[in-house]
Amino acid sequence: MISSKDIEQAFSILKPVVHETPLLSSTTLDRKCGNSVFLKAENFQRIGSFKIRGAYNKIAQLSGVDRQRGVVAHSSGNHAQGVALASKLLGVRATIVMPKTSPSNKVEATREYGAEVVFCEDSSDDRERVALELERKHGYVPVPPYDDDQIIAGQGTVGREIAKSLEQLNYLFVPVGGGGLIAGCAVAVKHFHPKVRVIGVETETANDCYQSFRKREIVRIEPPKTIADGMRTQSVGTRNFEIIMNFVDDVVTVTDDQVIAVMKFFLERMKIIVEPTGAVAPAAVYHNVLGISGQTVCAVLSGGNVNPAFLKTIL
Amino acid sequence: MISSKDIEQAFSILKPVVHETPLLSSTTLDRKCGNSVFLKAENFQRIGSFKIRGAYNKIAQLSGVDRQRGVVAHSSGNHAQGVALASKLLGVRATIVMPKTSPSNKVEATREYGAEVVFCEDSSDDRERVALELERKHGYVPVPPYDDDQIIAGQGTVGREIAKSLEQLNYLFVPVGGGGLIAGCAVAVKHFHPKVRVIGVETETANDCYQSFRKREIVRIEPPKTIADGMRTQSVGTRNFEIIMNFVDDVVTVTDDQVIAVMKFFLERMKIIVEPTGAVAPAAVYHNVLGISGQTVCAVLSGGNVNPAFLKTIL
Repeated sequence: MISSKDIEQAFSILKPVVHETPLLSSTTLDRKCGNSVFLKAENFQRIGSFKIRGAYNKIAQLSGVDRQRGVVAHSSGNHAQGVALASKLLGVRATIVMPKTSPSNKVEATREYGAEVVFCEDSSDDRERVALELERKHGYVPVPPYDDDQIIAGQGTVGREIAKSLEQLNYLFVPVGGGGLIAGCAVAVKHFHPKVRVIGVETETANDCYQSFRKREIVRIEPPKTIADGMRTQSVGTRNFEIIMNFVDDVVTVTDDQVIAVMKFFLERMKIIVEPTGAVAPAAVYHNVLGISGQTVCAVLSGGNVNPAFLKTIL
Repeated sequence: MISSKDIEQAFSILKPVVHETPLLSSTTLDRKCGNSVFLKAENFQRIGSFKIRGAYNKIAQLSGVDRQRGVVAHSSGNHAQGVALASKLLGVRATIVMPKTSPSNKVEATREYGAEVVFCEDSSDDRERVALELERKHGYVPVPPYDDDQIIAGQGTVGREIAKSLEQLNYLFVPVGGGGLIAGCAVAVKHFHPKVRVIGVETETANDCYQSFRKREIVRIEPPKTIADGMRTQSVGTRNFEIIMNFVDDVVTVTDDQVIAVMKFFLERMKIIVEPTGAVAPAAVYHNVLGISGQTVCAVLSGGNVNPAFLKTIL
């Protein structure tokens, strides 16, 4: 299990490379939910999501030999762009396995960062199969999306930035896909402020972590239908789950409609673009699912890479 | 003419009320234009634009008697909401004269802040006539949009925040409508960093200040057609012009198409919503109309209140 020292190390590796993203606030939001709310705006991060943090931390710590071998990752979303940009910045060759049904703008963005894209069928199994094949054939080093100590430590720098900026923090809400972000953030925040309550948030159809947390063992669900595509992982990782059980205080869910309402609020009132997954933790705060008041609350707004066509439907 | 002391006073009045908005940056933008660029994000300001600053500074300094009389302003845009919210926060009654053709969301927002809306015909003349009538009939105190010392000093706090955050600043780009924002910012920034070059930006059809600057006298133009509605003022104010001639180094123009390209860049890459007028100064930087390189540059992104229907056409 990683410790706050791993996050400190990640922080010094990432400091010259990633943005320290701002904490946004809104008087209207505070009034609506009766708390003092800060939104950690990782939609303003490089590649438009926190995923650059873990990927860069991982690849930067590869040995010289491993760097020369190149890396491989499979992702239809932000992890692809994170690995692509991190590799480019570090001068490492990257190959990304993407489903052939991936939106063309995501494929282009990944290629723009200099990665080679290899297509596969649209299933988790096939993605893993193709990535493993490339690993074996070319000796590429895999960069996993969440179940990895350096990935977790890298994502944890989000929590470190929050902890250093918000001395009075009472609650931290973090979205849960595979659990990399929440695991890293929980370790970081509890190190500085042990009394902060760390709350994981999922959409209700993608509630594998909610179930796992209650059952105290990893529950695997069928591929869930939800607008929050970062929530479509079927279970959290082993390393992630161990940290969640030790450092996370609760896991709650929101509906897709609650997520859409918050995306609309962000667009119309706060003038920011947030992807559905990025609006999940803010939705738990906006709709005040815990029924708290008078608290200092932070929610991680994890990314902003939303399809323009989908954005139009929201408007 | 106002001095930096007036801006310091405005700053202490505004500090508990307005947001100190962040300076955003983008590696892609830096690379595209060859400079180190910071965007002062006043789209994240309360009411979604810098206009709350001047309005609040003005109304807060009214005498007790004047506050009891109430205020009147005419505006189809952000000044209406600035006066409405400032009045509400200060417990002053506000009446806003708006063209009956104003978008319903702007009318509603103004009413939401507690102001009374009085409709007029859609012409500058009629707006002024109706406002003057209310002033005479009810004794309301007028809150002008830009040609006023306290309004200028309030808007100047934008420049003060920039000057305090960017020690190495070389260029500041500011949009010019009536000239309140640029006048205040120029006084503030030159006080702290006399060598910074302050550049006004207009759209090319709304180039009254560009012409005035070159002719060294106020030029009044026909109501211009431009997507940047904050640029539709026909001339800058007298007080504003005096400051512009003393503190501004140049005025440049961009096309409506250049503004649209930057709005698109903001939406797709930077995940922020900016109104056309708010994208005018950034457009001069993005398209590098001055042909500079290696400089530290700031552009004021003045507001984010864009019509959702228009936003859809951009997407």
